[in-house]
Amino acid sequence: MKISDIDVSSYPNSEKIYMSGSLFPDIRVGMRRVHQYPTVKIEDGKRTEYPNPDITVYDTSGPYTDPDISIDLYKGLPRTRETWVERRGDTEVLPSITSDYGRQRLADPALDDIRFPVRHNPRRALPGKNVTQMHYARKGIVTPEMEYVAIRENMDNERLGIKSHITPEFVRDEIAAGRAILAANINHSEAEPMIIGRAFSVKLNTNIGNSALSSGIEEEISKAVWSCYWGGDTLMDLSTGDNIHETREWIIRNCPVPVGTVPIYQALEKVDGDVSRLTWEIYRDTLIEQAEQGVDYFTIHAGVLREHADLVGSRLTGCVSRGGSIMTQWCVLHKQESFLYTHFDEICEILNKYDVAVSLGDGMRPGSIHDANDRAQFLELEVLGELTEKAWSHDVQVIIEGPGHVPMQKIKENMEKQLHCCHEAPFYTLGPLTTDIAPAYDHITSAIGAAIIGNLGTAMICYVTPKEHLSLPTLQDVREGVIAYKIAAHAADLAKGHPGAQVRDDALSKARFEFRWKDQFNLSLDPEKARRFYLESRRNAPDADDRFCTMCGPNFCAMRISQNISEECTKN
Amino acid sequence: MKISDIDVSSYPNSEKIYMSGSLFPDIRVGMRRVHQYPTVKIEDGKRTEYPNPDITVYDTSGPYTDPDISIDLYKGLPRTRETWVERRGDTEVLPSITSDYGRQRLADPALDDIRFPVRHNPRRALPGKNVTQMHYARKGIVTPEMEYVAIRENMDNERLGIKSHITPEFVRDEIAAGRAILAANINHSEAEPMIIGRAFSVKLNTNIGNSALSSGIEEEISKAVWSCYWGGDTLMDLSTGDNIHETREWIIRNCPVPVGTVPIYQALEKVDGDVSRLTWEIYRDTLIEQAEQGVDYFTIHAGVLREHADLVGSRLTGCVSRGGSIMTQWCVLHKQESFLYTHFDEICEILNKYDVAVSLGDGMRPGSIHDANDRAQFLELEVLGELTEKAWSHDVQVIIEGPGHVPMQKIKENMEKQLHCCHEAPFYTLGPLTTDIAPAYDHITSAIGAAIIGNLGTAMICYVTPKEHLSLPTLQDVREGVIAYKIAAHAADLAKGHPGAQVRDDALSKARFEFRWKDQFNLSLDPEKARRFYLESRRNAPDADDRFCTMCGPNFCAMRISQNISEECTKN
Repeated sequence: MKISDIDVSSYPNSEKIYMSGSLFPDIRVGMRRVHQYPTVKIEDGKRTEYPNPDITVYDTSGPYTDPDISIDLYKGLPRTRETWVERRGDTEVLPSITSDYGRQRLADPALDDIRFPVRHNPRRALPGKNVTQMHYARKGIVTPEMEYVAIRENMDNERLGIKSHITPEFVRDEIAAGRAILAANINHSEAEPMIIGRAFSVKLNTNIGNSALSSGIEEEISKAVWSCYWGGDTLMDLSTGDNIHETREWIIRNCPVPVGTVPIYQALEKVDGDVSRLTWEIYRDTLIEQAEQGVDYFTIHAGVLREHADLVGSRLTGCVSRGGSIMTQWCVLHKQESFLYTHFDEICEILNKYDVAVSLGDGMRPGSIHDANDRAQFLELEVLGELTEKAWSHDVQVIIEGPGHVPMQKIKENMEKQLHCCHEAPFYTLGPLTTDIAPAYDHITSAIGAAIIGNLGTAMICYVTPKEHLSLPTLQDVREGVIAYKIAAHAADLAKGHPGAQVRDDALSKARFEFRWKDQFNLSLDPEKARRFYLESRRNAPDADDRFCTMCGPNFCAMRISQNISEECTKN
Repeated sequence: MKISDIDVSSYPNSEKIYMSGSLFPDIRVGMRRVHQYPTVKIEDGKRTEYPNPDITVYDTSGPYTDPDISIDLYKGLPRTRETWVERRGDTEVLPSITSDYGRQRLADPALDDIRFPVRHNPRRALPGKNVTQMHYARKGIVTPEMEYVAIRENMDNERLGIKSHITPEFVRDEIAAGRAILAANINHSEAEPMIIGRAFSVKLNTNIGNSALSSGIEEEISKAVWSCYWGGDTLMDLSTGDNIHETREWIIRNCPVPVGTVPIYQALEKVDGDVSRLTWEIYRDTLIEQAEQGVDYFTIHAGVLREHADLVGSRLTGCVSRGGSIMTQWCVLHKQESFLYTHFDEICEILNKYDVAVSLGDGMRPGSIHDANDRAQFLELEVLGELTEKAWSHDVQVIIEGPGHVPMQKIKENMEKQLHCCHEAPFYTLGPLTTDIAPAYDHITSAIGAAIIGNLGTAMICYVTPKEHLSLPTLQDVREGVIAYKIAAHAADLAKGHPGAQVRDDALSKARFEFRWKDQFNLSLDPEKARRFYLESRRNAPDADDRFCTMCGPNFCAMRISQNISEECTKN
């Protein structure tokens, strides 16, 4: 699979548009505008066309769908945010990377072949400076990033007369209060700013990453681009195999969305998978290494404490978080408190030099319906609340990771406890899966939970692919997972009354009712598949804009009959 | 596609078992028992096996998965219920079918080739008798059908120490109160009794049926069997093409679950699709024709009134119910009240002679998020409540059909209004779809809504396949739709606390935690697919029972680390 094999023509009759900022005129927020065909009516034997408005949709695909930008994976994407960061005057470009491990890799000629060809020296806060979006927000500053996301959330809804409460100042206040984060490492200036918070549209994260058994660099980049193409808002690189450092560089340089990682995975690779040899020093160097590459948020399982280890044994499925299980094992082996917990202030002091957000990992998330909402899970949540306040005291942006496997009747308690314990920091949940009995369909078991918890206030949902529990996802699995989660997120946006969310539903339904088949496809989340399914049943007339479909046939089309009724009623 | 092509070996390590009745010893309730492998532990260097219990699962596949029953589609399934009906002594076998149309078809030699080869003369209530399960229930009688469903709901959970409130008497009382129905036409003695009501497990209906553009008899039977095989609880035959009468006979004679139809479709075929020529007489004859074939429930859009026609025009997507749009058009063309409404008492008098349940159709169900919970929808619901009481006065069993397209925040109002307006008659909803923007993925948009409304009290959910809105489903689409809805129904059962629902989740999760891969697959809703996904990533070791999976690789398996921690904690 090569990047060039990705067919980026799956969105027909669409156009990439950009909206500019008013506070910051050099901001250009990319969106996708779907053009519609006119409604045709025959009145008194005369054919009249009534135009239908363009519908603008949120676009996570970045430059990959802009025909005016030539993509070169060997050079990386345009580094748009670089000037914004520079303008603030509180950072410096370092002469070289500062992590020991990073330097070793750079000096190793055996890695020349797989190393990303362009070298960007890392940027860091000047001594004594704090460069997080939260820091600026708390000082009352509106950054270009904040105006960017305000525009992005509202799109061009004003054109359609839709009012919105989302202004750059509103964005700033939500970030200042810790209710939203804008994950934007100063070293990932290729990424388009986006916001995660319950006052905004629900976002979705996708996971990619090789394990020791599979996947190469090129395949991982393809998956990254592919997941952005279909609608992933952020991307976690969970690689645990060879050449993590180099793979990550390729991905970040070519990734238009914020990238997250779980640094403990790489730290463990550095000690050959031997948990007993893990140290704070190795972990610390890993944080710096990744922060200087441009990782936008780190999952850190700092809430897994030594005293929690005993609780694992009473569970049906123990500890199913990789990071959580590693740290629990470390505590047990060393008979010591977790270094992530004891060194949390130092961690925050590193993060606010690059503006890496912390995603507090739920090491004790339930791995089965049986273990949902148990003592281990909720005890950890209380620790995460304590750590949230600590991170905020360093102006570090925080999101809280959540379960996992939770039956529907226990989802609400999760959300309420999270808001209460973690002082309204954004919740970021994996699913949750609402039953355990459907491996190979866990994108569905979990889309149900994700839609429900999104409606209740979860800010970002982490996708699950059909391959969950079974193997690593292929490109098609990534697409299935992303679309299932776009559905969950959008259903939640509708239910929350997110400004303008229903515009697309209404436009698509109007197209459906008027037999504008192409518009129905083009406005959908996956135009290519919708069109393919439609055409499969009518191979002889691939371009027919018939006034019925195969489901009901010409005589039984309710929509057509319904139109006749309206005409009949009008006549009478 | 032939019936013999259906691979009925997709449930490995399973066994068909039967449980007998205590009130009626000749009852044999079929279930599927999944055997598990033992848990293997190495303790002090010694290998010990700990057995895991068999898990029994609800089985809708009927004789098709019983190796002791030889299937012959040309003879039909065993007519088990015939003796139970006969024993009641309130019915007679007629010398021939009594509908005019049925007789014409029978007399037409051109149809000999496609006619089902075995002739069963229809059974009907003796003059003055009423033979509905509701009639018996209200008299305090527990029928064999009632004991059958009580056993079926509880399965052999007693073996596992699980208590249940469901007794044959409880079943009777729920039916008597109208809160549940047991759809069991005396002429469909091939069907295994099942119960639809909110005090029981959530059921799912599948739709099959040819339209003028596609599908033959053999394909339809295959779809019917296939949908039962994967877990469909009832089956609606929505055919609108040629030879409906003969197709239906083949399906009913070979169908182990209750069959529903929408008689207005066939009535319209009889007048060549010309709504203006539809009459009460033609419709009445169609009811009798289908009741004598053994249809277990009729969808009747008797709540669509003449005065509602005007409301259609103000909607975004008008009337999307085929039956509803036909009747609305009829009212408008004839300037008369709907004959389904004006003749509803006569309809009930026909139904209670065969025990056909009525499924009151929601002709005004919303076809888009925009139209959800509008005046047209709720006005019709009030009429359905009035008709429910009328049907009950004839001891006719009633379920109420519901939407459709409904955003999450409006689902609860639907459920509450239905329970209130329709006096707690069981609710039977299509989805609902929680957004309009995902054609080709509407099994997912709607599984979200179905799970939520199932949890709130909906008794049966009507599946949606990935082809919804686009074309007729293939066999694989039927499978995808059924599994998505099994997930929704089971998630709702868990949330409702249905007795024993969680047993399967717990067993599967335990198997997952212990790396008993085969048990994990065998206990899942789709063992074949789960196994296939797993094997795709490890072609070299197809039978490996490895203690990790491709997702995380050997070093990063949280479950394995977690087991090590438990061992470590135990040692300390």
